[in-house]
Amino acid sequence: MLQLYYTPGACSMIPHIALEEAGASYTRTLIDFARGDQLKPEFLKINPNARVPALATERGVLTENPAILGYIARRFLQAGLADLNDPYAFADMQAFQIFIATTIHITFRQISRPDYYADGAAAAAALRAKVPQRANEHFAVIEEKLKDGRPWVHGDRYTLSDPYLFVFANYLKLGDRGDAALFPSIREHGARVRVRPAVQRVLEIEGLSARW
Amino acid sequence: MLQLYYTPGACSMIPHIALEEAGASYTRTLIDFARGDQLKPEFLKINPNARVPALATERGVLTENPAILGYIARRFLQAGLADLNDPYAFADMQAFQIFIATTIHITFRQISRPDYYADGAAAAAALRAKVPQRANEHFAVIEEKLKDGRPWVHGDRYTLSDPYLFVFANYLKLGDRGDAALFPSIREHGARVRVRPAVQRVLEIEGLSARW
Repeated sequence: MLQLYYTPGACSMIPHIALEEAGASYTRTLIDFARGDQLKPEFLKINPNARVPALATERGVLTENPAILGYIARRFLQAGLADLNDPYAFADMQAFQIFIATTIHITFRQISRPDYYADGAAAAAALRAKVPQRANEHFAVIEEKLKDGRPWVHGDRYTLSDPYLFVFANYLKLGDRGDAALFPSIREHGARVRVRPAVQRVLEIEGLSARW
Repeated sequence: MLQLYYTPGACSMIPHIALEEAGASYTRTLIDFARGDQLKPEFLKINPNARVPALATERGVLTENPAILGYIARRFLQAGLADLNDPYAFADMQAFQIFIATTIHITFRQISRPDYYADGAAAAAALRAKVPQRANEHFAVIEEKLKDGRPWVHGDRYTLSDPYLFVFANYLKLGDRGDAALFPSIREHGARVRVRPAVQRVLEIEGLSARW
């Protein structure tokens, strides 16, 4: 049985959506960062990096979204959540996801956790001030990819890159992080992802239906 | 024919080593950051993110090291560079690589490109000052994994996680980035990777044999 360690509204939403898309049997364990759950010894045994998501399997714990998503796609083949038989298509999907992990995710953390990068209020303010510029640069690369009118990130086929983008594009709408109005194709893409039943279920479970 | 876009001593060394391990036919194109090659229109067509590595294939260009490495492992099956038939083992390998991409790599960039995160000399100094603490935290997670005496990152089998760690552990030795002396298992691991013929060839080609 799979067990997902998640925090409502965090990027653990992405494997949460993937498990729902797959029709997987799994349990959920809520890690409340406000309560410091991520630093408790029982969770550090699950993920010594003190981060969500973590996916406990019969074999061990997996971390890092792009790796977890590849695993879910392979474990639930019938759900067709990735093009597994084409090495180029699979790597291209992963490159998109890892691009978000190493750029947009890192950039947004400059607001949520400036102390991760540097100490002091002045540094925190400088880190925050840079976010809109960098976020706009990164989302522009994605907008360029989507502006040919394709329904999904990689073309005609829905893959796990779609909820990945959906979640991070929603963070952009928080306001201080970049200019969502610059990216109409990403907005239209998000509307397509949002109405999927699996996504609706996750928004409901995580208590986000009214806000997202 | 594959074409690797690389910069000597950059993290493009990792797919460079992978291609050599695989016995691949490929060509190399040097991207000189000091000369601004990464911002020239012909390279931005290859990778709009202006980064190396990029791997041009017959189908298109792949970016992001963990994605590129998965592709090389699948394209050159006979080289046995990853456990491709076991979804858990493959995801676990990718999780290790993506962990480095999203933690250690980001941390080291606080020294090499502080302007990426924040503007101004004071912010750059604060970003640099935080690097040793974060780098030591991240490498400690890896040291803990290796200290059971396993020869390779994932156990008895050499995988592409091994050159990945080798390259980033070498950056640690640059001095201002953390305390390499804290990590004896990582040092021993690096010595095992360094003597591999494929690694020796890459060090020679990239002009690093004397320094690494």
